[in-house]
Amino acid sequence: MKGFGMLSINQAGWIEKEKPSCGALDAIVHPIVLAPCSSDTHILHGGSGEHTNLILGHESVGRIVEVGNLVKNFKAGDTVVVPCTTPDWLTENVQGEYNAHDEGLMNSFKFLGSKDGTFAEYFHVNQADANLVLLPEGVSPEAAVMTVDMMSTGFHGVENANIKFGDKVVVIGIGPVGLMAVAGSKLHGAGQIIAIGTRPNCIEVAKEYGATDIVSYKNGDIVSQIMELTGDGADSVIIAGGNAESFRQAVEMTKPGGYISNVNFFDIKEVLAMPAYSWGLGMANKTIRGGFCPGGALRIRKMLDMVKYNRVDTTKLITHRFNGMEEIEDAFNLMDRKSSDLIKPVVFID
Amino acid sequence: MKGFGMLSINQAGWIEKEKPSCGALDAIVHPIVLAPCSSDTHILHGGSGEHTNLILGHESVGRIVEVGNLVKNFKAGDTVVVPCTTPDWLTENVQGEYNAHDEGLMNSFKFLGSKDGTFAEYFHVNQADANLVLLPEGVSPEAAVMTVDMMSTGFHGVENANIKFGDKVVVIGIGPVGLMAVAGSKLHGAGQIIAIGTRPNCIEVAKEYGATDIVSYKNGDIVSQIMELTGDGADSVIIAGGNAESFRQAVEMTKPGGYISNVNFFDIKEVLAMPAYSWGLGMANKTIRGGFCPGGALRIRKMLDMVKYNRVDTTKLITHRFNGMEEIEDAFNLMDRKSSDLIKPVVFID
Amino acid sequence: MKGFGMLSINQAGWIEKEKPSCGALDAIVHPIVLAPCSSDTHILHGGSGEHTNLILGHESVGRIVEVGNLVKNFKAGDTVVVPCTTPDWLTENVQGEYNAHDEGLMNSFKFLGSKDGTFAEYFHVNQADANLVLLPEGVSPEAAVMTVDMMSTGFHGVENANIKFGDKVVVIGIGPVGLMAVAGSKLHGAGQIIAIGTRPNCIEVAKEYGATDIVSYKNGDIVSQIMELTGDGADSVIIAGGNAESFRQAVEMTKPGGYISNVNFFDIKEVLAMPAYSWGLGMANKTIRGGFCPGGALRIRKMLDMVKYNRVDTTKLITHRFNGMEEIEDAFNLMDRKSSDLIKPVVFID
Amino acid sequence: MKGFGMLSINQAGWIEKEKPSCGALDAIVHPIVLAPCSSDTHILHGGSGEHTNLILGHESVGRIVEVGNLVKNFKAGDTVVVPCTTPDWLTENVQGEYNAHDEGLMNSFKFLGSKDGTFAEYFHVNQADANLVLLPEGVSPEAAVMTVDMMSTGFHGVENANIKFGDKVVVIGIGPVGLMAVAGSKLHGAGQIIAIGTRPNCIEVAKEYGATDIVSYKNGDIVSQIMELTGDGADSVIIAGGNAESFRQAVEMTKPGGYISNVNFFDIKEVLAMPAYSWGLGMANKTIRGGFCPGGALRIRKMLDMVKYNRVDTTKLITHRFNGMEEIEDAFNLMDRKSSDLIKPVVFID
Repeated sequence: MKGFGMLSINQAGWIEKEKPSCGALDAIVHPIVLAPCSSDTHILHGGSGEHTNLILGHESVGRIVEVGNLVKNFKAGDTVVVPCTTPDWLTENVQGEYNAHDEGLMNSFKFLGSKDGTFAEYFHVNQADANLVLLPEGVSPEAAVMTVDMMSTGFHGVENANIKFGDKVVVIGIGPVGLMAVAGSKLHGAGQIIAIGTRPNCIEVAKEYGATDIVSYKNGDIVSQIMELTGDGADSVIIAGGNAESFRQAVEMTKPGGYISNVNFFDIKEVLAMPAYSWGLGMANKTIRGGFCPGGALRIRKMLDMVKYNRVDTTKLITHRFNGMEEIEDAFNLMDRKSSDLIKPVVFID
Repeated sequence: MKGFGMLSINQAGWIEKEKPSCGALDAIVHPIVLAPCSSDTHILHGGSGEHTNLILGHESVGRIVEVGNLVKNFKAGDTVVVPCTTPDWLTENVQGEYNAHDEGLMNSFKFLGSKDGTFAEYFHVNQADANLVLLPEGVSPEAAVMTVDMMSTGFHGVENANIKFGDKVVVIGIGPVGLMAVAGSKLHGAGQIIAIGTRPNCIEVAKEYGATDIVSYKNGDIVSQIMELTGDGADSVIIAGGNAESFRQAVEMTKPGGYISNVNFFDIKEVLAMPAYSWGLGMANKTIRGGFCPGGALRIRKMLDMVKYNRVDTTKLITHRFNGMEEIEDAFNLMDRKSSDLIKPVVFID
Repeated sequence: MKGFGMLSINQAGWIEKEKPSCGALDAIVHPIVLAPCSSDTHILHGGSGEHTNLILGHESVGRIVEVGNLVKNFKAGDTVVVPCTTPDWLTENVQGEYNAHDEGLMNSFKFLGSKDGTFAEYFHVNQADANLVLLPEGVSPEAAVMTVDMMSTGFHGVENANIKFGDKVVVIGIGPVGLMAVAGSKLHGAGQIIAIGTRPNCIEVAKEYGATDIVSYKNGDIVSQIMELTGDGADSVIIAGGNAESFRQAVEMTKPGGYISNVNFFDIKEVLAMPAYSWGLGMANKTIRGGFCPGGALRIRKMLDMVKYNRVDTTKLITHRFNGMEEIEDAFNLMDRKSSDLIKPVVFID
Repeated sequence: MKGFGMLSINQAGWIEKEKPSCGALDAIVHPIVLAPCSSDTHILHGGSGEHTNLILGHESVGRIVEVGNLVKNFKAGDTVVVPCTTPDWLTENVQGEYNAHDEGLMNSFKFLGSKDGTFAEYFHVNQADANLVLLPEGVSPEAAVMTVDMMSTGFHGVENANIKFGDKVVVIGIGPVGLMAVAGSKLHGAGQIIAIGTRPNCIEVAKEYGATDIVSYKNGDIVSQIMELTGDGADSVIIAGGNAESFRQAVEMTKPGGYISNVNFFDIKEVLAMPAYSWGLGMANKTIRGGFCPGGALRIRKMLDMVKYNRVDTTKLITHRFNGMEEIEDAFNLMDRKSSDLIKPVVFID
């Protein structure tokens, strides 16, 4: 079969591989909608080390073509939504607080590095019963594909931010994950929501999703701007973009007793500085969390319900639409270049 | 001074009293907007026992006329929003989880029974610095008066319901508190929200606030209807109205692991039945909470921010508007009769 | 093979059955230590309805005799500790808050009703990798067998009771689960611990486990005694025994803002009365939880660590020791009769 | 009156001052037992900037000599335990999650910098009703004085560490606060507890309080030792001592999904490095908290109950006893020099 991915570091292209084989608990899926993600381009450029002929992609809605003999709830022909995080539910680690790390750090993100991804005619999903969801009636495939990583990750940022009714929230970075964090903050009780970013179409969507204020690096020191807008600092700050510097800023702009929640993938070459003084020399009761989104069918079912019941319109994220498997390449290149009018591209496949 | 209240059980009327005196930490306030509440009529009819010449009322926005010599943040002339719950912050109980019970059960609800209420030319507020909030710019007095009990109580129902993104939520009762619980559920991440009620104008507002389904007692057994709409029960049920029977129904319609949150004031003559079987004989991991809304300036400031940042339009609750102190009587009688087109009346006073 | 169990309601005896067959993910285990439980006798007397020739038992440490071809971490010959709750980890419900209800109410308690139990030469364990734990070095089989239900259930009562440092805790019932709740309360920060019970050997162990006061029904009204000992009510009450009346008492003796946690299996014929008045007519912010203990390898591993690191000596529960499979009958009968010197019997099998 | 404290940076000595005056809500207290703390010596050496003639000290049990006219629960002659954190309960910030920051970062630690401390004939306590506790029967003054900062701070480290039954916990630093963190970890459900430290008498007490393993910097890299002892990292790490390096180590030795809790006062000159890689580049779901202990009467009452009900013997911390006000100087110098056999000194005053 044909797939698109990483030939070697910095070199993307088409790859010919065997169709994956299906374990007893698993499913083989053919994608019908795909979305490239900045994590895919990150890997291409060496973000998770050297890989050769690795099919990329981890966001998709697809059609099941085969299931293992122990699968109970799915059959060939079913249209399913595939979470980007697909834990091995028979390991002990998933029984702890976060199933994202089933057999070690981020291991439940199986499409990233530990096996071929979804940019292919067929891809493999482990433990279908626990990890797949039927596409619900009333939810379009393109709306659904935005939930499996963008919404799940952005909302995880919100979940870790401990937002209570009327809280003042800052979202650093308004790419697609940050935009979902804005929408999720509104849907978790935030009052004032300050979004930090500069791209006009992202600012537009941020406002539609609930941002009350927009702050730009171009207008001076970020921390000072936030202190002025909030009076005495934010109750919660969600880091959904930015750079190493964003970590320090987030701690500084949070008030004592507040929360900093990270869903940004810091680059391995970045060193984070902990601002000891504004962390109260360890005494400010500021909580710092950072995490990879949990996985599993239940989570994505709930994300899909947020779409189904019109709590959020995820299609606002989609700025570019492609058709046909061969256009994965264009969509991927667009994501790699990050053109200024891009939020998120999708590729429709028959 | 003149006040309106309870002459004796079942007899309402005007009362002539001394203007209240102001303690060192306290404030004396003149109301500018008032709202009668069903709790006021409940007291009139003996809900908290016998009282004589008790001024009623606990929802108001007002103008400070006097402050005690130890008050730091307020002065005569300030326009303030007055929480219905005004704890004594110097007692030990407020240092626990719920400040609503500062020196015993519901004691922080000081306007209810332990002293004269807000339906008067002047009323007393204990510990002004901890209990009062300046009316924020951009929030109208009538929108603000809806936050001090209706929103704070309805949202407390939401806070205790442990709603997570995409959860299925049922709200029993869609009077003003139940409607705020609907709005709050949407703003705390609910997917499907099923409101139980029958009055047309309340149903209308429930839908505007985010209800996806409306269920009526008139169409058969409530629990069966909920099971059909949800598939396997609700994640959370908020009881914001109804009768003793509602408690049993709430436990029954909640799925294992779910939450039942009560903000309904059960009548003292009602006996609640715990449905042992659907509570899993004690084994279903269904959590039952019920509580009076917390008090204090910070809470109401945050509620007001929900209005200020357009998260919810509380004025949808207001169906009747009265003018002048003398019209408190009409507004109160309207609340007592609960005419079918009533949600909430307010009285504007110069 | 031979097993002991329920021939029909109220009739216990030996049963001849086929050795269970092993699924791909499963294990077949031969018991080396067993413990009868009052739940087993409850079933015998019809607690879960009519059953015929059902092997009972759900507490055991054993030796694996066979594993399925997809099992990764275990092999024949391994000595393993078997949780009483063994969820099907590939269902969606386990991804929620409580895995005890994997496909419906209490369904993860598979040894109880849905399949044959551990009182047999061989028994079946679903999903070995997720549900079994190797017996750790330094933990005796008899100490270990007390963790799989008695400790896990008693400690679940503690987990749901929200005990904070210095809290006043009441434990109703000091059978083996209640005794573990006493030990767990001490190990979760309780200050005063009041145990309610009457049997001398249980009282002795309760004190050794950390009870500071003992209250008996024989000395008058339980609620009054607790109010006198605590001053203003308990912060948390754990119901680990008693009858329908215990529920009402628990709510009454809890202070506003406190927690009631149930791990008692109320009999289906009991009707629970919710004491509306002391529940503050729904306004007292008293939280009521009741639940079946979670399952899985991680949980039991942690319980075993409590033994391994000498946090609690579970063998204090064991008052009677039997040897040989045939003595299961005597041990079971002893549990059924509940002789006054019994806390918990164990049976050692070669 | 006479007091001992900081004449200027690095210069300690006796100071003659006016007896403090008592506000309407306050109390004036004469100390009967005092304990110097390393925070006091930290201030002397410039830790909170320049001060002149500042009386030091914040741990004491004393006798009330005067109360303000609005104080309800105390009178001259009462023997009281004085928390080191005494919030102004009439400010809005105490209504949030942490009262330690009533009007800004650490402001509730009023004895530290914002007013004279307890090393004096008389000292001032704000809001007596909310901040003081009568010395309970059965608790000695010397045991009580160990609760007001050492236990409250060490236990706060535990509270923020999210310890669940059977968790593996590391405590970095076993001075008096670290030792209380060890005791508190055991009393919050920890299984394995690994204490990091080197001083023999501290190691002795750490073992008595529940440490199962002792790790020393002298035996090689700390992180490697912890990984070896735990297998896959700690569930929770409490930082109660050490240096800037300890922060990095704590993050590294924590497993994905785990908790790092800091109660160490990092020196202002230290820069903390956030180990981006072991924090999973922000994706490891490791939660980092750090905070100053909450204040108020209720908290200290509960700490005292831990002593009263024999949950922990705080007097194990006391290695040196002094008598008479004039010996404050010797006790303070001992703390300043940190002799190798010192854990905590106390001074008894008539």
